[in-house]
Amino acid sequence: MIRAAGIVCKPIREVVCSVVPPLIEWLRAHKIEVFVDKETQACIDTKTAVLAREAMGEKIELLIVLGGDGTLLSAARALGSHKVPILAVNLGGLGFLTSVTLDEVYPMLEQILAGQHRTGERMMLEAEIMRGGKTAERHTALNDAVANKGALARMLDFDVSVDGDHVGRYRADGLIVATPTGSTAYSLAAGGPIIHPGVDAFVITPICPHMLTNRPLVIPDTSRVEIDFSAATGPVYVTLDGQIGIQLLPMDALAIRKSASKVAFVRPPRKSYFEVLRNKLRWGER
Amino acid sequence: MIRAAGIVCKPIREVVCSVVPPLIEWLRAHKIEVFVDKETQACIDTKTAVLAREAMGEKIELLIVLGGDGTLLSAARALGSHKVPILAVNLGGLGFLTSVTLDEVYPMLEQILAGQHRTGERMMLEAEIMRGGKTAERHTALNDAVANKGALARMLDFDVSVDGDHVGRYRADGLIVATPTGSTAYSLAAGGPIIHPGVDAFVITPICPHMLTNRPLVIPDTSRVEIDFSAATGPVYVTLDGQIGIQLLPMDALAIRKSASKVAFVRPPRKSYFEVLRNKLRWGER
Amino acid sequence: MIRAAGIVCKPIREVVCSVVPPLIEWLRAHKIEVFVDKETQACIDTKTAVLAREAMGEKIELLIVLGGDGTLLSAARALGSHKVPILAVNLGGLGFLTSVTLDEVYPMLEQILAGQHRTGERMMLEAEIMRGGKTAERHTALNDAVANKGALARMLDFDVSVDGDHVGRYRADGLIVATPTGSTAYSLAAGGPIIHPGVDAFVITPICPHMLTNRPLVIPDTSRVEIDFSAATGPVYVTLDGQIGIQLLPMDALAIRKSASKVAFVRPPRKSYFEVLRNKLRWGER
Amino acid sequence: MIRAAGIVCKPIREVVCSVVPPLIEWLRAHKIEVFVDKETQACIDTKTAVLAREAMGEKIELLIVLGGDGTLLSAARALGSHKVPILAVNLGGLGFLTSVTLDEVYPMLEQILAGQHRTGERMMLEAEIMRGGKTAERHTALNDAVANKGALARMLDFDVSVDGDHVGRYRADGLIVATPTGSTAYSLAAGGPIIHPGVDAFVITPICPHMLTNRPLVIPDTSRVEIDFSAATGPVYVTLDGQIGIQLLPMDALAIRKSASKVAFVRPPRKSYFEVLRNKLRWGER
Repeated sequence: MIRAAGIVCKPIREVVCSVVPPLIEWLRAHKIEVFVDKETQACIDTKTAVLAREAMGEKIELLIVLGGDGTLLSAARALGSHKVPILAVNLGGLGFLTSVTLDEVYPMLEQILAGQHRTGERMMLEAEIMRGGKTAERHTALNDAVANKGALARMLDFDVSVDGDHVGRYRADGLIVATPTGSTAYSLAAGGPIIHPGVDAFVITPICPHMLTNRPLVIPDTSRVEIDFSAATGPVYVTLDGQIGIQLLPMDALAIRKSASKVAFVRPPRKSYFEVLRNKLRWGER
Repeated sequence: MIRAAGIVCKPIREVVCSVVPPLIEWLRAHKIEVFVDKETQACIDTKTAVLAREAMGEKIELLIVLGGDGTLLSAARALGSHKVPILAVNLGGLGFLTSVTLDEVYPMLEQILAGQHRTGERMMLEAEIMRGGKTAERHTALNDAVANKGALARMLDFDVSVDGDHVGRYRADGLIVATPTGSTAYSLAAGGPIIHPGVDAFVITPICPHMLTNRPLVIPDTSRVEIDFSAATGPVYVTLDGQIGIQLLPMDALAIRKSASKVAFVRPPRKSYFEVLRNKLRWGER
Repeated sequence: MIRAAGIVCKPIREVVCSVVPPLIEWLRAHKIEVFVDKETQACIDTKTAVLAREAMGEKIELLIVLGGDGTLLSAARALGSHKVPILAVNLGGLGFLTSVTLDEVYPMLEQILAGQHRTGERMMLEAEIMRGGKTAERHTALNDAVANKGALARMLDFDVSVDGDHVGRYRADGLIVATPTGSTAYSLAAGGPIIHPGVDAFVITPICPHMLTNRPLVIPDTSRVEIDFSAATGPVYVTLDGQIGIQLLPMDALAIRKSASKVAFVRPPRKSYFEVLRNKLRWGER
Repeated sequence: MIRAAGIVCKPIREVVCSVVPPLIEWLRAHKIEVFVDKETQACIDTKTAVLAREAMGEKIELLIVLGGDGTLLSAARALGSHKVPILAVNLGGLGFLTSVTLDEVYPMLEQILAGQHRTGERMMLEAEIMRGGKTAERHTALNDAVANKGALARMLDFDVSVDGDHVGRYRADGLIVATPTGSTAYSLAAGGPIIHPGVDAFVITPICPHMLTNRPLVIPDTSRVEIDFSAATGPVYVTLDGQIGIQLLPMDALAIRKSASKVAFVRPPRKSYFEVLRNKLRWGER
């Protein structure tokens, strides 16, 4: 039962602004209260309640995201532990996550109101900056946590362990720990495999490893990965979903495990995971 | 409680023949009946009951394999659905699976008799040759099922589907469907990731794909993979664990899913999965 | 000065048959004698002199190839040491080599007759099967010479040397020695780099190497590569351009060096090497 | 005829300090004047003339470098256009370039004095920062010129052209343009091929390309590569040999071509290029 819905869009483009007002009207006509975030408010002139993205989770039963995968990533992190299903509508290029087209929005909203929609859950990861044995910062990410060297540095030496077992000393540009959802993002560019969202796993993908046998490693999602940078000679940077960036202090470590929160996506009819993959990676063409 | 044990070794080399007789004596001294396979019998002269590998599963509570990973693979397939733990002793080069050294054998046997050993289970896959809608052949493999083109052919066109969803049309030398155990064997050479045995997954790794975006794909081990070769213009060959080879008939398909059988290995003390990995891939050296 | 031209096409498809007769007429109208190969003769009913592909080199000053890269490869090998420029017209999918479209044929023929065309040369390789210290067979290839294991074999062990220096013992599915032209064919699928035709080099690309550090190796085209299979335990197969296949005898070796023959292509106006690359590999799309 | 020699070492470790004084004595005993750089002077107490690395080229006929590949890279750049042969002695781990061992130093010096040594030349590249149509900075590198994104940025969009022909728009972490010498350094870690120093080529290797078909590209060393960053949305960093770092200004471009300077190495007896490769990449081991 949907009583309130949120709308989040970014970047604000003409197409968004022409799409949002009728969408708000439609939702209201179906007796659904509507909240928008500040960025969205900027491009509409109807009076609509504005709410910070972080605050939406408590108020709404459905989040409509208009944009690309980037918009979705930040919206998903903002929802946090609130299990609000997301209808992720792509504008422009088809995204891995935003695979619902504009044409499909209203039919899907009808299905959602009728309770006939399908949702798919995606796990998230939780990354902790460990400092002096304590957690200095904690972040959630849908795609990946990435540690990497500074722009002018030559390489990074670091040690990876999984559940306390030493995996190895790496010498590389950095390391990606990705969820199945993130396996088609940066990890893929670094040479990682594609991981179906139904696999309960993380993939640990080294970025430009100097030891050529340091290959991507898929581990259970019940694992706790710890990256110890005490062998590093320069600054270390951590990014979450490519959107949140942190420079570590010397002797900080990075720990990654499965988040207690999940993201639920409303799934478009008929589209299999592989169909989206085929389209995005152009497997159909020769 | 171990009442009977089997010994399987291959290839028969001097080191095996010097190791087996005292091992048999030790087992008998501990009131354990011993069976050997035909190859092993050839290098000992004590009177020991000979049993085909396939028949051992019913008679024994422990299988001791002396050799390399290849010997182990065929022994594991021969055991089939009998849940007999395997003590896999490497002779010569350290194997991914045969990571117990000769020095460790007797201490580990003591532990096994005392019921203080640890075992680790590994999933197997079941491969079916589908012919006219029926299963023409069914095989089990611990590492992988591989479909590939003939030696002089240029490439193979085939369609992969997972649980009925079309993954894509591939143009490649072939395709590997590997278990986590097999991920460090042929799949790794073809560019696949390393998959921890705790991940419930298969990896589908194309061999020399002409479409560069056809990357390795990790899917849940509850999936049924079907490979349809009706687009192929030449003969198709299937191998299981690199040991059993079959030439398909035109219009045959290959279906792969998780086997009901598992293999249980007696684990050496202290050795983590990553330690074996580090040793085999020489991650420790620079 | 073009007095005679040859036409080679394959496979014989409707589009070829509608294109060839007016082409023959046009050439004759320009006082050029025309020869066709047997396959082409089959789809036209005008009386045109038929000549084996191997015999054309002596008679003609221009070879027009209609088809895909495969047709071109065999035509180029057939021309051998005769320096006859090739006008390679693609039918259907754009090829790496057959980048002239049907629309461009007549304008380009005009340019050729006026002596205003540009040609680009491509090196070829010569592969020798060495048996008992002597050359048992000698073949020419435009793309590559490939040695590989049998379809049901597990791997191939072999030794590679360059100009007598031992490069290494390989354990792999096989080995590709490719020209720059061949670097965008099979070698690319096996993980090799793209080599601009202006680079005087071969690339040695292992197929699924078990030693992960066995990376593609680019060597001067003045080198003589020798592959010694005496460590191999099963049959070895050699293919040239994916079109000529030979099963080696035990103890045969394979030697590869630059051929004295080159192929000259008439180049379409404006198309740079990179433009063809971008189109074929779809670098322009996102 | 060697009248003066320079000695450069770094990092200053005990082993260096025990090696340098007898080496200086030996050289003087052979009537060779010796110059050391400031870092080397710090660990010896004999009175030896100190000279900046950049000034050595004019004074000496032989440069002895003690250290690893890093020390050698900076010494080679410092020599610039002075064609002084380098005797590169490795201390500790075998380097790709510093393949002369301590044991071999004195026999090789004897050979050098007798004029019986072999030298091998390696090309260098020249990188220019282009600003407003003019060259703002010019640097030389033996291994590579690398452009990459900032540590917290997501990716870099840039356009590559070769001799004015557009190669493509890249979306990646960065780009490496490497000499054959540099092909076994960072480019190899990023997935590039190994290029024999006898090949007159550069390799252009993308770092983590988002378009999976953007593969390493080998081009003639007569080419001029230009990288246009006007499509980039964040800062761009350029490093030479991993040792010199520059942050570009917005709208700067990077141009790379062959340097007029070459480096000449005194080659150890018998060691082929492949032998060094085999040792460094551990091709010999299983």
